[in-house]
Amino acid sequence: MSKIAYLGPEKTFTEKAAKLIFSEGIFIPVQPIRNVVIGVETGSYDRGVIPLENFYNGQVIQSIDSLTECNSAKIIREASLKVVHCFGALKGHGSIKKVYSKDQALEQCGKYLGQNCADAQTIQTASTAEAAEYVAQNGLLDSAAIAPREALLKSGLEIIAEDICPNNRTRFIVLGREQTKSTGDDKTILAIHPPERDRPGVLADCLNILGSQHINLECIYSRPDGKKGYYFYIELDGHTEDKNVDLALNALKNSLDPREEHGDTIKILGSFANSHWKDEN
Amino acid sequence: MSKIAYLGPEKTFTEKAAKLIFSEGIFIPVQPIRNVVIGVETGSYDRGVIPLENFYNGQVIQSIDSLTECNSAKIIREASLKVVHCFGALKGHGSIKKVYSKDQALEQCGKYLGQNCADAQTIQTASTAEAAEYVAQNGLLDSAAIAPREALLKSGLEIIAEDICPNNRTRFIVLGREQTKSTGDDKTILAIHPPERDRPGVLADCLNILGSQHINLECIYSRPDGKKGYYFYIELDGHTEDKNVDLALNALKNSLDPREEHGDTIKILGSFANSHWKDEN
Repeated sequence: MSKIAYLGPEKTFTEKAAKLIFSEGIFIPVQPIRNVVIGVETGSYDRGVIPLENFYNGQVIQSIDSLTECNSAKIIREASLKVVHCFGALKGHGSIKKVYSKDQALEQCGKYLGQNCADAQTIQTASTAEAAEYVAQNGLLDSAAIAPREALLKSGLEIIAEDICPNNRTRFIVLGREQTKSTGDDKTILAIHPPERDRPGVLADCLNILGSQHINLECIYSRPDGKKGYYFYIELDGHTEDKNVDLALNALKNSLDPREEHGDTIKILGSFANSHWKDEN
Repeated sequence: MSKIAYLGPEKTFTEKAAKLIFSEGIFIPVQPIRNVVIGVETGSYDRGVIPLENFYNGQVIQSIDSLTECNSAKIIREASLKVVHCFGALKGHGSIKKVYSKDQALEQCGKYLGQNCADAQTIQTASTAEAAEYVAQNGLLDSAAIAPREALLKSGLEIIAEDICPNNRTRFIVLGREQTKSTGDDKTILAIHPPERDRPGVLADCLNILGSQHINLECIYSRPDGKKGYYFYIELDGHTEDKNVDLALNALKNSLDPREEHGDTIKILGSFANSHWKDEN
């Protein structure tokens, strides 16, 4: 059976994602993200499952940064899962003065909290499940917790409001070492590291090349490389096996590094079937 | 005295940033980020201090998303602070089997952990200070904590390694409601919401307009708007009072929304002195 590493600890959303994606395998919780990625790179694991983007929190930069270091590990699939946060408190609770949850969940639910209990104090816990347990075990009648429905019910809290952070999705990626085939509806993730620093227009040149091959962008972001230069990460529609993508990648390389003096100007982090953020769950 | 709201809780890095930036004022810890931003927008606070970007974690999307909703609150200043994580354990500790810290710190230090204790289990705590306290109070000789130097020493741990996550910086922004003046070395943050969805090349067109006015980009990233469209966030060199920036912004508006049918096509989140990621601390 395949060894499937996923970002731990157990009983988190990434474990749920891994078990939805793979019906069987040996599931191994691994932390931090970099250990999942390097474990696939070196062959310790056959597959890795890590988050890439959350609708409210944006990119998971550690996933991209770790992959950019790799030569064998690649993204072979993506999967989007709906994240449903609920608001719960003890039966017979009074007005809510304190809200417990994990910091990311408190931030994601900022709008709901602002509209429904703007004066409540928010208190961070190590996990959403811990928040529910804390409120229940301490009998806090002036407090609520933000957690998945099951976690609130398991701790004996009642649900005050369901899905308080609408449209919340996390996009996970599956890592492997093999080359994927074009399906006809794919995306490709590129890391571009322009050797010329501080030239205005270098990104515009790259996008013009992609545009000239009628390639649509799904996502773009830049990151400082720590050496006064930048990385650009681009998700584009198409597979590296597609003719227009292949032509564009060659034109990009030629434009950014015409004398082939630099090794890491363009790196393909993966070409794989486009999930279009459709929920798996 | 000014009322200065900062992202709480107390004793975190954002409080340190707020107190470095402002020598006096009434400092008020506020959570989540959205409550800081809306509090400045509505006049409850004179200033707000929130994180915008961490070198290892990327953009703090909640800061940008909340600001995009505002009409009065703007970024009036940025400040970069060095974040130094240290590795500590009890005196007389054995080999490290468990590492405690906040999840973001565990991720930021992924490389150090992979190189120095790859087999150690990582355990998330609600804060870095809590990690140090937990190891100390439970007398865990097989465990270490990642936390700032002062937090480790205060809990009675000894420092095993200093600054285990080099180049780690967080860029904070200061919010206010007044218009800033050009200093001659500024940056401007734009939120662009193209009314035309799915047109390949729309971003390339925007960047070509900026390039034609010799405007350098510092940062760019896209976000799905939840309605099958995208926001593009751009940090560019220059102030809205600068002639080339003014010309480019008008050309952008004209290109994206020629008949002026849409209200939110381009929003200026702030024009302010460029910190160039120079440390305040």
